[in-house]
Formats: sequence, C-alpha cells, structure tokens
Amino acid sequence: MAGEAAVAFAKDNGERFVEELKELLRIPSISTAPEHVGDVRRAAEFCAAELGQIGLEHVRLVETSTPERQGHPLVYADWLHAGLGPDGKAATTVLCYGHYDVQPAEPLDEWKSPPFEPEIRDGNIIARGAVVDNGQMWMHVTALVALMVAGGGSLPVNVRVILEGEEEVGGEGIAAFVREHGEELKADVALVSDTEMLGPGIPTLCVGLRGMIYTEIEARGARTDLHSGMYGGVAPNPFVALAQIIAKLKDEDGKILIPGFYDRVQAPTSDELNAWDALPFDEEHYRETEVGSTVLTGEPGMSVMERTWARPTMDVHGMPGGFTGAGAKTVIPARATAKVSMRLVPDMTPAESFALYKTYVDSICPRGIQLEVRLIHSGDPIVVSTDNEYVRAATAAMRTVFGAETVFVRGGGSIPIVGDFVRHLKTPTLMMGFGLPDDNLHAPNEKFHLDNFHKGIETIIRWMTAVGA
Amino acid sequence: MAGEAAVAFAKDNGERFVEELKELLRIPSISTAPEHVGDVRRAAEFCAAELGQIGLEHVRLVETSTPERQGHPLVYADWLHAGLGPDGKAATTVLCYGHYDVQPAEPLDEWKSPPFEPEIRDGNIIARGAVVDNGQMWMHVTALVALMVAGGGSLPVNVRVILEGEEEVGGEGIAAFVREHGEELKADVALVSDTEMLGPGIPTLCVGLRGMIYTEIEARGARTDLHSGMYGGVAPNPFVALAQIIAKLKDEDGKILIPGFYDRVQAPTSDELNAWDALPFDEEHYRETEVGSTVLTGEPGMSVMERTWARPTMDVHGMPGGFTGAGAKTVIPARATAKVSMRLVPDMTPAESFALYKTYVDSICPRGIQLEVRLIHSGDPIVVSTDNEYVRAATAAMRTVFGAETVFVRGGGSIPIVGDFVRHLKTPTLMMGFGLPDDNLHAPNEKFHLDNFHKGIETIIRWMTAVGA
Repeated sequence: MAGEAAVAFAKDNGERFVEELKELLRIPSISTAPEHVGDVRRAAEFCAAELGQIGLEHVRLVETSTPERQGHPLVYADWLHAGLGPDGKAATTVLCYGHYDVQPAEPLDEWKSPPFEPEIRDGNIIARGAVVDNGQMWMHVTALVALMVAGGGSLPVNVRVILEGEEEVGGEGIAAFVREHGEELKADVALVSDTEMLGPGIPTLCVGLRGMIYTEIEARGARTDLHSGMYGGVAPNPFVALAQIIAKLKDEDGKILIPGFYDRVQAPTSDELNAWDALPFDEEHYRETEVGSTVLTGEPGMSVMERTWARPTMDVHGMPGGFTGAGAKTVIPARATAKVSMRLVPDMTPAESFALYKTYVDSICPRGIQLEVRLIHSGDPIVVSTDNEYVRAATAAMRTVFGAETVFVRGGGSIPIVGDFVRHLKTPTLMMGFGLPDDNLHAPNEKFHLDNFHKGIETIIRWMTAVGA
Repeated sequence: MAGEAAVAFAKDNGERFVEELKELLRIPSISTAPEHVGDVRRAAEFCAAELGQIGLEHVRLVETSTPERQGHPLVYADWLHAGLGPDGKAATTVLCYGHYDVQPAEPLDEWKSPPFEPEIRDGNIIARGAVVDNGQMWMHVTALVALMVAGGGSLPVNVRVILEGEEEVGGEGIAAFVREHGEELKADVALVSDTEMLGPGIPTLCVGLRGMIYTEIEARGARTDLHSGMYGGVAPNPFVALAQIIAKLKDEDGKILIPGFYDRVQAPTSDELNAWDALPFDEEHYRETEVGSTVLTGEPGMSVMERTWARPTMDVHGMPGGFTGAGAKTVIPARATAKVSMRLVPDMTPAESFALYKTYVDSICPRGIQLEVRLIHSGDPIVVSTDNEYVRAATAAMRTVFGAETVFVRGGGSIPIVGDFVRHLKTPTLMMGFGLPDDNLHAPNEKFHLDNFHKGIETIIRWMTAVGA
C-alpha cells in the first residue's frame, strides 16, 4: 500500500525532515516587527520552493498589502489530480492550513540557546516557531513529500495548501482572501495543526474554540492634563473611573456582571462534561507548572476545563495613558484607556455581546467622565462536528500511531480562520495538533517534542490515505 | 526714599527687564530631558552672571550631581552688608528662592508660537517658563537690581539668593543642600514666588500647602505572561486586581475608604472657611475654563477650596504593564503597576498615612495576587503663620501696588522645599506669587501677564524696603 510505503519513507527520512525544519526556523519571520518584513517573505519563499519541489502546482505568493497596511504574503499551492475514487465518487479534497510567521522572541535573555538557532536537546527541537506553527506546518509538508514519493508522483487525495504569514498579528490578509477568493480554497475538509495534545501520549482533537471581542474603553475627564496638587479633589480621574468600571464588569468570583451576557451560553452536554471529567488532568500540576500562581481563580463549582473552554471570561490587557515612566509625575491625565477583551462561547455572538457590554459600560459611567467604547476585533466561537468520516479517520490513524484512544477537547483561544473555514467556506475542519502543554508557545525556549513531530507526520500520512481510499 | 527711587527705576527700565527675561526664556532649560543638560547649565550661568553684575557676592554654581544621578546646579549669591538698622538691631536677612528649570513643552503643535521664542501678545509674555518660574524668579532679580541702583550699591536688607534647576524633577539637589549646608541659607524670612493669585487684581498670599505620598502598587499573578485564550478563566489578572483595589480606595463621592485615614485631618477654622467663602470665586467659570470637565467631582457639601486645599485626595497617574500599543494583544500580564498618590493636609503625616494605606491595600488583596506597595516620595503638609511682620509688610506693599486687600489662600499642591525651609531651617516663608489661574503653567502657551510682572517687581521692592526699615 502506498500509505505504508509513505510511512516507511517518512521514517527513513526523519532526520532529513528535521534538518529542513531547522533551516526554516533559522529565518526570524516575526510578523509584527517592521524590520523583519524581508525575513517573513524569505520564510514564505522557503515554503513555496519546497511545495514546488514536491510536485505541487500553481505555487504562488499571494500579496496581501493594501494602501492602508503592510501585509505579508500567503503561500498557495495545489495538486488536484486524484481523480475518481474506486467507488466512482470524486476524490476527497483536503485543505492544509498553517502559518509560517512567529511571535517576537523577547525576553531574549531567558532563552537557553538563541531563538533562531535551532538546537536539539532532550528529544526536543528548540527555537521560536518550533511548535507554533512552523514545526506543525512542516508536518503537513513532509507528509505530502512522503505520499508523493510513495505514490510515484501522485497523492491519494486532492490537496490545496494555504499558508499565512500574519497569524500572529490578526490574520487580516487571509481573512480578506477567504472573503474575496473563497472558491480557490474549496475543499471537503480542512486540516489545521495549530493546537496541542492534552498531554504526552494522548492523541487529541480540538473540537471547539472560544470566540472573542477585543475592545478599548477610553475615558476622558478634564480638557487637558492637570496637576493633581491643584486639582486633586475636583477633577475627574480617568484611571479611577476605569477602575470603577472594571470592578463592576466582573465579580470577585469571575462572574461577568453585564446584564444578559450569559443568556445564549450553551452548557456543555453531559456527555461532554463526563468526557472532560475523565481526562487525565492534574489540576495542582497544571496550576504549578503552567500558570504558576498561588491559586487558580474563576467561577466556583466549575472545572478548569469548563472555565477555560465553555465559559465566557473577561480580561484586561493594558491601560495606556498618563505617566508610566520610572518615578513620579503628579498628572491627572485628561484621558486613559483600558484594553478589555472577553472570550465568548457558543451560542454567543460578537455583535450582540459587544452591544450588551457597551450599553452596560455606558450605564455605569462615573460622574464627570465621557466614554468611548470601541470594538477592535472579534471572532466567533465555534464547535465543530465530531460525527463525520474525517474525524473517524483521524481517531483511527491516531489509534494506530499512538496506540491510544483520541480525546476530544476544546480550546480556550481563538483561531479566527477556523471560524471563516467553518462559517464562510462551510468546510468541516479538523484541528489535529501535536504540541504539548509545556512547549512554551509564544514564550522563551519554545520547543516541539521530536517524537510528536514524527508521529504527527505518520498520523497525517495515514489519515490522508484513509480519507482518499 | 530709596524705596521710591527703586520703584521709579524699575518703572523706567521695565522694557529692559522684559528683554532680559526673554533672553533667559530662549534657553530650553528642560530639566527632565538628558539632551538639554547643557541648556539647563546655560540658564544657571545666565542667572549667575546677572546676579554678579548687580553686585551680589559669593556668586557660584553648586554642583548637585552624585555618582548615582545627573544633577543640575544650584545658583547661590548673597549680599550681607546691610549692617544694623536704625533701632540698632541686626538687619533683616531675606532668602530669595526660585527655579530656572522648566517642564517639557510638549505637545508642541498646540503652541501658537514656538515655546522657546518668547512673544508678547495681548499684554502677556508667552513662552515655556514665562510664569513657572523664570518670569517670577526674574522679578526677584530685577527688584534687587533696582534696589541696588537706587541704594548706590547698597540694599535695605541682607539677601541670599538660591536658585535651583531641578524643581520640575523633584528637587533632590536642593533638598540635599538644605540638609547638609542649611546654615548657608540662614535667613529671617524666605520669599518664594512660585504660586498664583486668586484672580486678576486680587493680591494673594499662599499660607498652606498640601503634603503628599506618591506610591506604586505592583500586582503579580501568574509566573509569566499568559495567553488569555488558553488561561482566561483561571489565571489571576493583575490589572483586574488593581482595578478592584482602586475601586475600594475611594468611594464614588471622593471619600477615601482607608480606615483611620481622616483621623488627624484638621478642619479649617471657621474664620478661614468664612474667608474662603468670601473669596471672589466663580465655580462655574472655574469648572469651564480651568478644569474643562462636564462636572466637578469630590466630596459633597464641601466647597472647591475645601476639597482642593483642606481635604486629602487620592489620584491614579498611570498603570504601566501589559500591552499598551495600538491594536490587540491578548496577554494576561504576569504583573502590572498602579501609580497612586494621596494629598495630605495638616496634621496628617506621610509616614502614618502610608502605613494605613499599605495595611488596607494588603487587606483587600484579591485571590491569587501578590502585592508590593512602595513609597516613591513624600512631602509634609504645611500651614504657615500669617501673624508676623513679614506678612503685614507684604499686605501693606500689595495694598499700595494693587489698591486692594490681600486674600489668603492655600495651595493644593506641594512645594517640597517650602516644607524644608519651614521645618528644617525654621525660616518663616512668604509665598507671594503673581501668576494667574489661566496662565497655562506646565501646558502649551504658558504665559505671564506683563502687568503682574511689573507689579510684582514693585511689590517686592516695597516689601524689601519695609522689612529693612
């Protein structure tokens, strides 16, 4: 069988694949940094060259810059010659999604080896982007290499590949492309490897993501900055006002106080709750190693899974304005801003959630303060179906590779493009990731367990072979 | 009389004095800006040269830099030959204090003329430093010029002049000098012109200043910055914690909620309150032109004077930490800080007030958060005596010059050096300033009304003549 031959090829060539990945990881493709714009493009060109060499067609960079913004290119490639299946049905088309941009590497002094000089230590490859998402994206590419070689230049499925270079900065370019050229990404199923496993040796599919609204509340008081000596006692203070508002947004048990905010929140099914309870999860270990706080906070009587996967939350990310330097300046600033986001769960919608929030914030505006409540960006919450042939093929492939049953989890974060695939393209999406909770994604000493890299490649080969059969 | 001759000389030479002041105002002596360190020194040298030219002695720059910090020089000069008075008593010694450093001029685009190119418009001199404090300090210098010329090289009083170049950045250098070399500033009375008149044509003496404690509350939650998607719902958020704390520090009526905080607050006497009620003060005009907010805030049932002069207040000046750039980053920061200050009134003490505050803040610390409450700097509240010959001479001089009775006000802010003069040197201090409430001190288009400049010079001449008689 071509599948087994591809698996064998991948095993024989594992070291070569790691060396190629290292080459990619040496490119500091930091999408948020203007000084790295050339590096981001170089990473795109590296991926495009490899896809062309495999034998994929229509390989091209899709520019995303507009007069308003500097964009980073998308990489597109396809191979659409799988023909009819043995049963006479059209062959399955898989859309492989990944991103080749990375987060900044700061704080640099916390890295044990330089972030863009990948090293192998303790069975891990260590570099910025090792797990998010270059390493996982490279599993897709190498699985295609192995299948193509084993198939004598032919794949068991039709494949479209779309890679983006802006995932870490909002993904505006790919969102526009999906809106305007969605038909070019038409597929039966999308494969996204940008999530993690629940723990070592536990094959995991992510079947839900929280949505979000990211907002700013700008508070204005006096016309200009004032001196707190002369005017302290009569001038409204925008920071105090924001503090009063924030303290009324969420109670001390983590319950959001916006009227109507929970009206559309769907409780997980009892099957789902039972499955979450059965997950091999050690809360104390999680608190100590992942969060590192003295206690975990949030709504009493709910598990960590419920609180991070199935409940809306509110966080404050920064409060720009006033004086933030070292030492003292006695300014009552004319204005201050709070960056406030809320995570949403099915069936909440960003538009309605933002409207409820804005109405409430305006209703609790302190005296002497004028507010502007702005929506910066948003993403829909999603739950994907687990009842389809692609999911069944995935659990079967993972059973073969890992010798264990797949667990179904949700993710607390958002991958906005998944919402676009599901809602806009109506493409069932498989979130099959191979990262581990301690992989330090977005943090110093980011790593990817090499055993998971190789098992991920094998899983993808087996899955593609199965869905193409 | 030498006094009348000096007044006549000052009137005849008014334009020349303004031209000299313009020369000083052309020097961008911004003490907080490292790139202007040479300009600050140039301003010091300009003042020293003029004091020498008048005939003052021991003119020198006193360096204040230490291995730990870049300081700006003090300017010292004296003339101590007034001899015995006609009654055989030792002549009065006056300590003239002023500062030659200025605040930054930003935002530059709001200036109608460049901040360091002084212009005369509508009877005002407009420049950064016009009123705080170069223009007012220059009144002292020119009064001494006129008295020296009229006296044929002799002054009616002994004079010591001390000018600093760090008033806008905390005054560390002069504070150290007072501590270590206080005897060099020994005087019977200190004259400080760094305050303002209650309104045009209303001669004003400032007889009290609030003290302060300037603090930082640093809140720590998780060990490292976390992603709000993955950890929102379980990880403590330092900004939310700070908001909860700040909301509990002061109620919505401006009352500070720290237990025991008001225990030592002395209510103004009924005489003082009656005098404040009688001041020509239009609250609506003040709100609209000075504060520019929709309403004035603060404790109900108390006048603006009580709230800004005789009541403690709490303000937040900035909240550094987390993400403050444009757009969105979904970080739950590991730590965040609030810069919080409180103004104090007699008989509160900074040490006790800080202790009460710290105990209370620690007692309301939210779950999962660790706090560090730091005192950055502090100043004592003071009320100066109005029952002495220097005050009587001042009100008499101002009655002659302005044709109006002096009003006694307090100031809401702190001039820490005044506390040092009063407490450390035991020198009665006269805060006789000639600024106006709309002079835009520290703001764009700072101005000084030229009529007040000239009347201030005349007042100082008449006052020095009287206290020397």
